[in-house]
Formats: sequence, structure tokens, C-alpha cells
Amino acid sequence: MSEQLTPRAENYSQWYQDLVIKADLAENSAVRGCMVIKPYGYAIWERMQQDLDRRFKETGHSNAYFPLFIPKSFFSKEASHVEGFAKECAVVTHYRLKNDPDGKGVIVDETAKLEEELIVRPTSETIIWNTYRGWIQSYRDLPILINQWANVVRWEMRTRLFLRTTEFLWQEGHTAHATQEEAIAEANQMLEVYASFAEDILAIPVLKGRKSANERFAGALDTLCIEALMQDGKALQAGTSHFLGQNFAKAFDVKFTSKEGKQDFVWATSWGVSTRLMGALIMSHSDDSGLVLPPRLAPIQVVIVPIYKGDEQLELLTQFIQPIITKLKAKGISVKFDNRDTHKPGWKFAEYELKGVPVRIAIGPRDMENGTVEVARRDTKEKSVYQVTDLDLKVEHLLSQIQDNIYKKAQTFREENTYRADSWEEFNKILDDKGGFIYAHWDGTPETEEKIKEMSKATIRCIPLGNKLEAGKCILTGNPSIQRVVFARAY
Amino acid sequence: MSEQLTPRAENYSQWYQDLVIKADLAENSAVRGCMVIKPYGYAIWERMQQDLDRRFKETGHSNAYFPLFIPKSFFSKEASHVEGFAKECAVVTHYRLKNDPDGKGVIVDETAKLEEELIVRPTSETIIWNTYRGWIQSYRDLPILINQWANVVRWEMRTRLFLRTTEFLWQEGHTAHATQEEAIAEANQMLEVYASFAEDILAIPVLKGRKSANERFAGALDTLCIEALMQDGKALQAGTSHFLGQNFAKAFDVKFTSKEGKQDFVWATSWGVSTRLMGALIMSHSDDSGLVLPPRLAPIQVVIVPIYKGDEQLELLTQFIQPIITKLKAKGISVKFDNRDTHKPGWKFAEYELKGVPVRIAIGPRDMENGTVEVARRDTKEKSVYQVTDLDLKVEHLLSQIQDNIYKKAQTFREENTYRADSWEEFNKILDDKGGFIYAHWDGTPETEEKIKEMSKATIRCIPLGNKLEAGKCILTGNPSIQRVVFARAY
Repeated sequence: MSEQLTPRAENYSQWYQDLVIKADLAENSAVRGCMVIKPYGYAIWERMQQDLDRRFKETGHSNAYFPLFIPKSFFSKEASHVEGFAKECAVVTHYRLKNDPDGKGVIVDETAKLEEELIVRPTSETIIWNTYRGWIQSYRDLPILINQWANVVRWEMRTRLFLRTTEFLWQEGHTAHATQEEAIAEANQMLEVYASFAEDILAIPVLKGRKSANERFAGALDTLCIEALMQDGKALQAGTSHFLGQNFAKAFDVKFTSKEGKQDFVWATSWGVSTRLMGALIMSHSDDSGLVLPPRLAPIQVVIVPIYKGDEQLELLTQFIQPIITKLKAKGISVKFDNRDTHKPGWKFAEYELKGVPVRIAIGPRDMENGTVEVARRDTKEKSVYQVTDLDLKVEHLLSQIQDNIYKKAQTFREENTYRADSWEEFNKILDDKGGFIYAHWDGTPETEEKIKEMSKATIRCIPLGNKLEAGKCILTGNPSIQRVVFARAY
Repeated sequence: MSEQLTPRAENYSQWYQDLVIKADLAENSAVRGCMVIKPYGYAIWERMQQDLDRRFKETGHSNAYFPLFIPKSFFSKEASHVEGFAKECAVVTHYRLKNDPDGKGVIVDETAKLEEELIVRPTSETIIWNTYRGWIQSYRDLPILINQWANVVRWEMRTRLFLRTTEFLWQEGHTAHATQEEAIAEANQMLEVYASFAEDILAIPVLKGRKSANERFAGALDTLCIEALMQDGKALQAGTSHFLGQNFAKAFDVKFTSKEGKQDFVWATSWGVSTRLMGALIMSHSDDSGLVLPPRLAPIQVVIVPIYKGDEQLELLTQFIQPIITKLKAKGISVKFDNRDTHKPGWKFAEYELKGVPVRIAIGPRDMENGTVEVARRDTKEKSVYQVTDLDLKVEHLLSQIQDNIYKKAQTFREENTYRADSWEEFNKILDDKGGFIYAHWDGTPETEEKIKEMSKATIRCIPLGNKLEAGKCILTGNPSIQRVVFARAY
């Protein structure tokens, strides 16, 4: 068939690109670095959004919306934010087009130049904290627990669908607190929300940890993260949660009066995940036949393909299958009955494999006579014949099994690709041979971290939460180290 | 209390502004013309989104996402689109900032100038049809039924929160069809979706009609609309659905092979509603005490305010009320129990009135003894004492009554403010005295329409669907007319 993907073993990066395109998830657009998220890809993203949104609301957050544009001067206010943040941003300088006097089409009206340029938001801390100043006077106004679903723009030179695009979709939480303890607890809580979402819904095991100073978000005092391991042995940062201290409150002069009547700056957090999660999802579970979706995330959980000749047979099969569909739907299972006569069953099988539908049920006239169906699971590709009695219960159970199996498989892969390296040679050998997470000693200095990155292209992914302290020697400098940290090459 | 609004009779426009700010719906931002949608306002918008999204999906549409930026040249491709569409757009010319060498802060890096300027989407027909070209080869690829939830930017000189802002949130449907009939049916269907949403959920009666040629969307062959009448006698266009013919398909060369093997251009529709609906909602139902929300849209449908002295009384009241809350929630009613000790009951009553919560339940120690509560409805401000027996059923019934009453009130208002004018004098007198919808004869020419607009500031809101033909004379020119059309001054 024409939809064949480049095998992973041949070219992982091409496999990824093929899969995203051929499974109808996304494509490149006419605008450099910006993607079109196609309906099937967007349906998966929507399910991620819904589940996350529910978790945010359950932990007391509300959604709100702040402007797309940020005045340029705002970026100068928080020194470490402007210093550390990438300056590749889309800049709006004019606000009008006009008809080209020399011919057809439109040109920029040079007389409509903005006094101050506007930046398309790369992240919204600055505009949000400028707004919070008007909302916060007293401890009674705190905490503020807000999330925003939005598009953001970072002008990337080398882009890859979902993983690194100029425009991407994300959510950004921005909270304001009366005390440092409360803000730290919030940052921790949101990391846990992300971790359980990744593990329970996406079936991706994640390492929870803390970034080294070098890898912190610009303006943060502490950056927590969840790190996932992709099938090619590279790491992917799947979500971050920042404790921002009072940095943004100071930059935007946001003070409050405490219960005791004292004035103090407000404490802040921010946290986000993005359409990058789509990349993590694809690279965690999929295979050479296409996408593998965990059932809890799949827009279509079960597809039913009738195998028939002529309208009469289809009619009989439909009558037979309809009560089963009704029962499946009553269990909250999303079912697609693909009775299109424009495509053959074999084509449909390949198509739903490509799209990662967890369970495929095929039924032909002989099955009907026997009161059976053929059930194929996407994750293992096993096929079984099921009696239709209680098929809804069996399928429900199977979906749950698949969810578990996908998670366990990814977990086993991670375990098998997690190493300890005790020398620089060993470290590099692992990186070059297999990749994976490498626990290694580091002397704790930014300089050494930088050198390791330059020499090996591996970065410190995180210092795991609750990391065991253990005396050792830095793999590069041999200087004393108090703990192993997790290195990997990363997306 | 400090939250008093300017009365509508004194200054309607100031009342609107006061309400939006004081009910915590939205506020102006640091960026000219862009608003911040606050959590309470956003919660209402979210409920609109959810209900519309469900209706879109029920009618077979999927969501997708297209780029924020559109290459400037795309706007030159569809002649009537570029001609008719406002040119007030945000133009991105550069893609990098840099540290200011002369001091602190950032400046635009002039070396990072785009070869072709990018326009922040004011609407997405051009980029979407450019994308559809790659998706459509054969009739098998049709129809494409896609919706996008997005932010758009139109550089407005005079802005008003929700009603006219530089950036706003909306949904835009973009569909592609094999036949003209199918596209027209789609445009009609989506108008019906909008109308029933407006009437059933927002409780706003709407007039369904067709725009005159002058008022059509740039690039459309036919623009259908729903028009609502605000309390000040001005009309507000609450949604539009366009039949675009083959204009965009021709501009972007989107052809398909029909079942019969012929090549033809694809037929299109587009349709949208925006955060403007928030303005329509406010101006349809609210009063001098604040927002009035239809129960089906209200984020909080019932607020319960305990009236107590000391923790012990609160504890008893809470025990008494808890089973009632549980029962209300079991009926799917959203309930807030406001037991804050930071504010007095009177303050809370005013606050929830301002925020339009449909039902307020107050309960004090004496009520508890009597097994009663005091129930106040927001729409009529009537208070009644209810026995707590079956309170959930009573409240459910009351919410439904309120929904109906709000709709009927708006409908009565519209009826009382719908007029027929048979002369130019009469027409202007109605406009100046009361406003409202005016059914009047028009000779059908764009020139007359333009003159009427210039002289009276009234526009043709629509030619109602199924309009009765009736011979008459144009109110301005006296020329023959075949039907009355609906005029009004509008937002």
C-alpha cells in the first residue's frame, strides 16, 4: 500500500515525519515553521486538553485570556527573563495594509507604523504580571489561580512538526500567592498533575525532577520538569512547572498587604505543556505500521469493519452489529462503524493501524453465523475470535489491558535504557551506542555542565526529585560530586 | 455600595462599560484595543464554546487548527476579498529582538527582516483554502467540514470591550463541497445552529435573514445572519454564515474530479461567531443591578449564602444545607456555597446580583428551625420562602422558569420595538425616539442603501428569511419596492 512508513530502524526521523503526515495528524503550512493541525491530530490534542483542563479545575484553577501582543518594553522589565529568553520573536511593526497603487494586490501602509512595536507572545509572564498589579491589593485577593489556553510564537530556525514549530498551542498557568511556601507547593502540585496525566492518560512513564541552574526557565528560581524517554533513546521534556519567586512581582511592582498589615511582593509560579506532547506521544508508543494510541486518549477506541459483498449482506451485518455498537457506546466507548463502500477491508485495516485505533473488530457473514467477531488489538497486533456474548464487557476489559500494556512496554523500554556511567569513556560509549537516560556524577558547576554539553551533546535532563545522595567523582572533571544526575541527548 | 453601576437611563454606554468591569467579565489591557477576559467572563465564554462545539460536532464537523500568520500575498488572490476586507491588520515584519547596545532592554534586530510580511489572521479563508488545495483531489475527499477555535486580529480604531476589540476570540467554520446545493444547504444549516443556540441557550430572540449586497462578507455570494435587538434599541449582528460560491476555490485553484470524471472548482462556506456574543448577552438581559444570566449559560446557577453569627451557627447551617447541595448537584445544577467570613451577607447579595447568578438561596438559624429557605430569583428580583422538602425539584423548575422568562422578556421587548415606517419622516422619528427594528420599503439599490445609511445612520440589518413580498414605495426615493427590509442603527 502507498501509506508505508520509512522503518524506524532505517531512519527514525523520517519515520516520525512520515507518520505525522500519513496518519493525518499535521502538516507544514505555507508559513515557514507554522503547522496545520489536521482534524485527526487535533482530536487527539482536544482530548489532552479536556483531561488537563479537568485536572486544572479540580485543583482550583480557572481559565482566562490575556492579549496575544506584548509591548516590547515589557521584555526589558525582568532582567533575567530578557537575558535568558530567546529573542527570536515575531515583531508587529505596522497596523495597516493598502492597495498597491502600482498594480494588483496589497502592500504595507508605511504611514501606519506603531509607536512601540508589539511582540507576539512567546510566553505571557510579563503581560499577565502587568495585569495582576491591578488585581492584587490585599491578601484577600490571593491566591490567583489562572490558566490560559493559547497559541504562542517562537521564531524557530529548524522546525519539526509538533516538536518544534514557530507557532504552537499550549496552556500556561500563572499563579500568585501570599507566601513562598504556598507558591512552592503550587509548583509541586502542578508537576504532579502533569506527571499523572502523562502516565495515566498518555501512558508515558516520566521522570520527575528539577532542572539545573543552566536549564532553568528565564526568570525562575526553580524549574521542575517531567522527562520522557523516546524510542530512539533521546529524552523529551514533556512539561515544566516553575517557582518564580518574587521576580515578576518586583519587575511589575505587584505588592499586597498581608493579614498583619505589612506590604510585600507577591510570589509566583508558572507551568505549561504544549502540542509538543503530541510528539512525545508518537515517539513513545508507535511502530513501523503507524501510530499506537493509548485507549484513554484515542478519539476512536474501537473501529468495526464489516466484510461483505453487496448491499444485502451489509444490511444483515449492520442489523447484527447495531445492538453491539449501542452497548459499547453505553459504556462510554467511542466506536466507529466503517461501512464505506469506497474502500476495501484490507485498506481499512491498514488505515486504522496507521491511525492507532486501539481495537479493530472485523465481522463477515461466517462470523455472523457463528456468533463471533474477529478482534485485533493495535498494540500487539494479536487477533482473537470473540463470542459476541458480553462483547461490550470484553472490549472494555481489553481496552483497559491495552492501556496498561502500552504503559508497561514504555516503562520496560525506559528501564532497559537507563544506565549508570562512571567514566567519561563509558558515558560517551552509551550515548553513541544506545542513548537513554544516564545517571552520572557531575561536580555541580554550570561550567562543567556546559562543557559536557559541548563535548557530548548530552544535557542534564533533571536532578530527580528525592534523588539519593551518593559521594562520587564528576565524570568529566573528576571533582567531588554528591549525587548522580540524569543526562541524555534530547529533543 | 461601591459597585454601583451608572443607570442605563442615564448613560447606556457607560452602564455597559461599568457592568463589564465591575462584574469581572473583562478589562482593557496594556495593549491598545486588546482586552483581558477575566475568569468569570471566560467561564461564560467557555460555556458558549462547549455548547456550540457540541452542536458543530453533532452536525458532522471536526475541529482543526491553521496558522496564526498569513503571507501578505494571499490577500491579493481573491479580488473581492481583498477589495472588501478592511485593511486594518497587524503586520509582522521582523523575527528577532536583540539587546540594546546603548543600554538596558531590547530593540528590534533590523537584520532580521522578513522577505514577505506576515499578516496576523483577520479571518482564515485564504490560508485555509490554500491548504485545502492539497487535501482535495476527488469527490471522495468531499465534503470537508472543519471548524477552528482561534484568536483573530483586526486593528480597530475605536474599541469597546467584547463588542469591538483589536484581538477577539471566535470560531470559524470552513467547509468544502462538491455541489452548489450542498454548500448552500450547509450555510443554511449553520445559520439554524446559531439561531437555536442564541435562542435556547443565550435566551436571545434573533431575526434570521440575508444581508444586502453592500453588507455581504468580502468574497461571499450570500451572507446569512442572525440579528438581535439590544435594550437601547440598537441591533447587533450575532453570527454570520456565508455561501462563498467557488470564489476561494478559484483564487487558490482548488479543483476536484467528480464521480463522472469531470474537473470542477470546489464550493465553499464559512461561518462564525465571536466573543461579541458576550456583548449581545449583556445588552439583552442585564439591568441596573448588573448582569442577568440565563440559567443554561450561567457558570454558577445557584448561590447559597448562610446568614450566621459565629462558627457554631455556621457549622449547624452547613450540616443542614449539605444534603440539599448534594441533591442539587446530583441534578446537574452548579451550586456555590459562599461561607466566606470576610464578607457580610448584604455584600454577597449585591455581588451575586452584579454577576447575574440566576438563583440565590439565603438561610439563617430561624429558617433552619422552620425548615425553610429564602429563594431570590435574579431576573425578577422576587423573593419567596420555600419549604426545603424537594428543594432540588423546586429549584430545577425555577431555573427552567427563569430561562423561559428571560427569553420571553427579550422577545416582548423586541416585539414592542419593531415598527413599520412608511415615510422618511416617520422612519427618522422612530430612529431618533426609540430605535428598534424598522420594517420599511427600499428600492433595492446599493446607492439608496448607502444614502439611507449616511443620512440616518441606520443600515439594512437583513432581509428576513421567508420575507413576505409586498408592493410599496422606497422610503427615501419613492421608487417601487417589492418588500420591506429590516433597518436599524447597529453596534
